[in-house]
Amino acid sequence: MSKRTLGPCVTFFPQPTTIISSISLAGEVNLMTASWVGIVSKTPPTIAVSLNSGRKTYENILQTKEFAVNLVPASLAVEADYCGVRSGREEDKLKNTNLTLETPSQIAVPLVAESPLNVECRFIREIELGDYRLLLGEIAEIHALDSAFAESGDIDAKAFDPLVYLGGIRQYWDLGKKCANAYQDGLTLADKK
Amino acid sequence: MSKRTLGPCVTFFPQPTTIISSISLAGEVNLMTASWVGIVSKTPPTIAVSLNSGRKTYENILQTKEFAVNLVPASLAVEADYCGVRSGREEDKLKNTNLTLETPSQIAVPLVAESPLNVECRFIREIELGDYRLLLGEIAEIHALDSAFAESGDIDAKAFDPLVYLGGIRQYWDLGKKCANAYQDGLTLADKK
Repeated sequence: MSKRTLGPCVTFFPQPTTIISSISLAGEVNLMTASWVGIVSKTPPTIAVSLNSGRKTYENILQTKEFAVNLVPASLAVEADYCGVRSGREEDKLKNTNLTLETPSQIAVPLVAESPLNVECRFIREIELGDYRLLLGEIAEIHALDSAFAESGDIDAKAFDPLVYLGGIRQYWDLGKKCANAYQDGLTLADKK
Repeated sequence: MSKRTLGPCVTFFPQPTTIISSISLAGEVNLMTASWVGIVSKTPPTIAVSLNSGRKTYENILQTKEFAVNLVPASLAVEADYCGVRSGREEDKLKNTNLTLETPSQIAVPLVAESPLNVECRFIREIELGDYRLLLGEIAEIHALDSAFAESGDIDAKAFDPLVYLGGIRQYWDLGKKCANAYQDGLTLADKK
């Protein structure tokens, strides 16, 4: 397949769309959309968030040592985009989005009620990356949409309807169809013993 | 919306499905599927990959200081799953998947030819996270599927057809439809000046 070179740049891997909630020392809540977010360890469960060091959210997390990662459903794409482009220093994001808060269990930072998956995190450390900071958080608790779970325990991914962000081309997409089961379908290619 | 707590665990954010290519000091190529992958800075463009420290890929990257991140299209979900569950120490993944290699431009590690997007990386540093290592790589070059680009310069995300991995429930999904344009659609909610 024919390819072209793009040079070193921030390219368009599919990434999660999340809203990071944080509070200032004075207790003011801020919301910020982040897509440079991912699980990075399970010993212990750890999440990494990369953000610009000029962000109010960065200041809040360094001061309070806590944050929450709230998964954005496809139905809230416009609200998420707004929380990414405007600063909590200048606008009231809760008022302008009609998003509401709910009570966390392990930290003091409230969660986004309309998010189907909320991850409470305790800040561990930061890594400096030019103008950005990679913040590592240990996962303290997870809240997941009850109606996504069948009685069998099976989980319906479409009930979460996660919004995927394609950074390089600045587009939000939803999920289509399931293509394969992991740790299972690939075994058909393994050496026969 | 009613929610249940899951405790601290590795939950199911949508993550990219990628195959990391690396070479040993002897020049043997290994492929390993990774989904704990993401862009973490643009000053300079930097990618982070988290993997278990027991992996052959980890050993290769520490020794040669180079790796490539190859985006997996939905059509290769089974091949990607296989490259995630089996070890390059025991099986010939290229032979069993029929994947082929192509020549890089900035590093010595070959790229996966069937991947629509290849990112050449130079290893910068590692961060220890329990049994895992977060490897940071500076992006040296990107190769992208030519046919995804319109004459106008617009990029067709569906031409890349990126495979999304939902970790907590171990499922691979493709993209559905575009929901919004980033840095644009959210402005409708901003304060009117």
